[in-house]
Amino acid sequence: MGMTMTQKILAAHAGMETVTAGQLIQAKLDMVLANDITGPVSIHAFEGAGFDQVFDKSRISLVMDHFAPNKDIKSAEQCKTCRTFAKRFNIDNFYDAGEMGIEHALLPEKGLVASGEAIIGADSHTCTYGALGAFSTGVGSTDLAAGIATGEAWFKVPTAIRFELTGELPEHVCGKDLILHIIGMIGVDGALYRSMEFTGPGVSSLTMDDRFTICNMAIEAGAKNGIFPVDEKTIAYMNGRVHRDYTIYEADPDAEYDETYTIDLSTIRPTVAFPHLPENTKTIDEAKGVAVDQVVIGSCTNGRISDMAAAAEILRGRHIKRGLRAIVIPATQAIYKECIHRGYIDTFIDAGCVVSTPTCGPCLGGYMGILAEGERCISTTNRNFVGRMGAKSSEVYLASPWVAAASALTGEITDPAEVL
Amino acid sequence: MGMTMTQKILAAHAGMETVTAGQLIQAKLDMVLANDITGPVSIHAFEGAGFDQVFDKSRISLVMDHFAPNKDIKSAEQCKTCRTFAKRFNIDNFYDAGEMGIEHALLPEKGLVASGEAIIGADSHTCTYGALGAFSTGVGSTDLAAGIATGEAWFKVPTAIRFELTGELPEHVCGKDLILHIIGMIGVDGALYRSMEFTGPGVSSLTMDDRFTICNMAIEAGAKNGIFPVDEKTIAYMNGRVHRDYTIYEADPDAEYDETYTIDLSTIRPTVAFPHLPENTKTIDEAKGVAVDQVVIGSCTNGRISDMAAAAEILRGRHIKRGLRAIVIPATQAIYKECIHRGYIDTFIDAGCVVSTPTCGPCLGGYMGILAEGERCISTTNRNFVGRMGAKSSEVYLASPWVAAASALTGEITDPAEVL
Repeated sequence: MGMTMTQKILAAHAGMETVTAGQLIQAKLDMVLANDITGPVSIHAFEGAGFDQVFDKSRISLVMDHFAPNKDIKSAEQCKTCRTFAKRFNIDNFYDAGEMGIEHALLPEKGLVASGEAIIGADSHTCTYGALGAFSTGVGSTDLAAGIATGEAWFKVPTAIRFELTGELPEHVCGKDLILHIIGMIGVDGALYRSMEFTGPGVSSLTMDDRFTICNMAIEAGAKNGIFPVDEKTIAYMNGRVHRDYTIYEADPDAEYDETYTIDLSTIRPTVAFPHLPENTKTIDEAKGVAVDQVVIGSCTNGRISDMAAAAEILRGRHIKRGLRAIVIPATQAIYKECIHRGYIDTFIDAGCVVSTPTCGPCLGGYMGILAEGERCISTTNRNFVGRMGAKSSEVYLASPWVAAASALTGEITDPAEVL
Repeated sequence: MGMTMTQKILAAHAGMETVTAGQLIQAKLDMVLANDITGPVSIHAFEGAGFDQVFDKSRISLVMDHFAPNKDIKSAEQCKTCRTFAKRFNIDNFYDAGEMGIEHALLPEKGLVASGEAIIGADSHTCTYGALGAFSTGVGSTDLAAGIATGEAWFKVPTAIRFELTGELPEHVCGKDLILHIIGMIGVDGALYRSMEFTGPGVSSLTMDDRFTICNMAIEAGAKNGIFPVDEKTIAYMNGRVHRDYTIYEADPDAEYDETYTIDLSTIRPTVAFPHLPENTKTIDEAKGVAVDQVVIGSCTNGRISDMAAAAEILRGRHIKRGLRAIVIPATQAIYKECIHRGYIDTFIDAGCVVSTPTCGPCLGGYMGILAEGERCISTTNRNFVGRMGAKSSEVYLASPWVAAASALTGEITDPAEVL
């Protein structure tokens, strides 16, 4: 029986010819990631276990992105712990405030993750890098501590769900709408501990940014990982970024999948996940008209340049609705600079938006746009759990940057087609 | 006996021919200001006192700048209180996240304060507007509530200290150095409840930004207000900004001053206030060499375009010291945009700095750069009290943007002359 793409990467990293679903394996890791929230927990576990060396100082990334620049004394202490650890072991990829960006946008941008690699991160959205054809998954901080020390991790080989994509997304519909549609279809535990493998002729039409967004939210369906095949777009993305050899894996033709869903991309509509689960999706026709107090455009899900471009296209020469706050957060310093050069930051400021330095900030209720009781936010982020972005009675609606920006103009959830 | 400049403005606003020091007067107000911290307190006092109307919806400013974009649920509720109040009374000058800037940079920029006016604000640095030849002072939130309702406030007419300025500041020395020098000279209570009136031939060489910085920190010497005479630079600044008549007041030739200090501006050196009081000043020769963990360039004291220009001149084509964080915060959206157009933001990002949306943020330990235990920050802000910017054992050193930016390059307090 053949292997899925994920299984082939895992087999190679376990030094085995084949692996089968359910098998426990020990795999070598190409990159181990933590941030300013999970880093300190991992570092304490690392020290508590008596480790005194790291497996490879070039294969560890510490990114200060969640509550940095430090939002309070506690977060300042957390960054300090990471900074001290990075200095002690001379970690190459320590990204402090100023150099940084949101981890899951930063690592691909810096070429720190590549096709065929195995990556763990103490952050649930580590699954993002599957867009590059890597096996990439979130782990707990203790597993991460062991990863930092040994460069290896244990996995139970997952089964997979295949998403056979055909057609092309309509204009002003993007990867976010597709993944929201899928989570709405299979539910937040629809892919529990399984791989979500995207395949089919529709893949080629998806931009890399679309693929990052889609894999980013695989965890919101409970998946172990999401993964795309490697094609010309993937290779073009890695050119000039990845300066080492990488391997391209393909699923075996006879690989077994728990299920296969065929999705015609041309049927996907702008989609919004209502409170308080990403599976509570409605198409824009059913969603529109809900009044909002705040709009957030950013995050590891949708803070990339194409997301900024979408927002700028909608907001250019216009002003957001009075009484509403719109917060735009380019995901990395490089994206921020590109936004400056393309005139997007001018557009955003002229439209009445806040433009923030790269940070996870509001997504997880950190800072830079926390909600008061009863307030509603439409956001391009990835989770809309109770109280995720602030007060317990506040609400988060998940959407694409097209929908979020359109809603900023009107103050209610709006179909981008109606304002373009 | 003649009146000081401050006394003449107060007399006019009290509808009196003359006032004398120590006299209690009731004065009409031209502008009443609160922010997202003091606004809610004032609003509760306003409501608690049974007021149900505001004196003039065009003469009240509410600026969401301290903890906005909301850093937590509490600050979100505070902004919501202000937003609701602004909507209820149709307040013209309600500045929410996105439209805003730091209040004391924003109000002059928007032409909301002008020469000869009387202004109160529930923020101690309201004294900033003295740079325009206005009487402007900080009050408590209860006084502010009465001001919002009645458009009047009670004052005890202050005596004054005169600062007779001669000469010109040396290159890379600015208003911040002068006011730090003065506070070092007279102490943090050296001007308690008195006016600091700046005069003399040296005034004309000071830029408006210098004058804003100087008046901003008058409160750090305990002053009721700081004030500059109105000259061509003042009028040029107000042209295109202030669209109403204003009055220019001058001190009477026989005005009485408690003291007169003559200061030759050419003798001022880059000056740094050491922890934990603004009066603990040292000149750069005595100050240099102290290692720092963080640099902050911004605030109502030094977040204006000339401050950004100074920082950019030092940082252009260079990189901040590894392991140090540098946080640059343009004080308003207009300044931020000007920084973009002049290429400063590129310079800051390339140098490894964080660039934040306009906010008071770190200055008062809000967010966007809080210090861990034992960390040191050199900052262009106005106060270096114990724990002001974070942990109790952290330290803040106050300096000009020239000194702060130079220190960002080296990681220790540095004379800008040594890196230019």
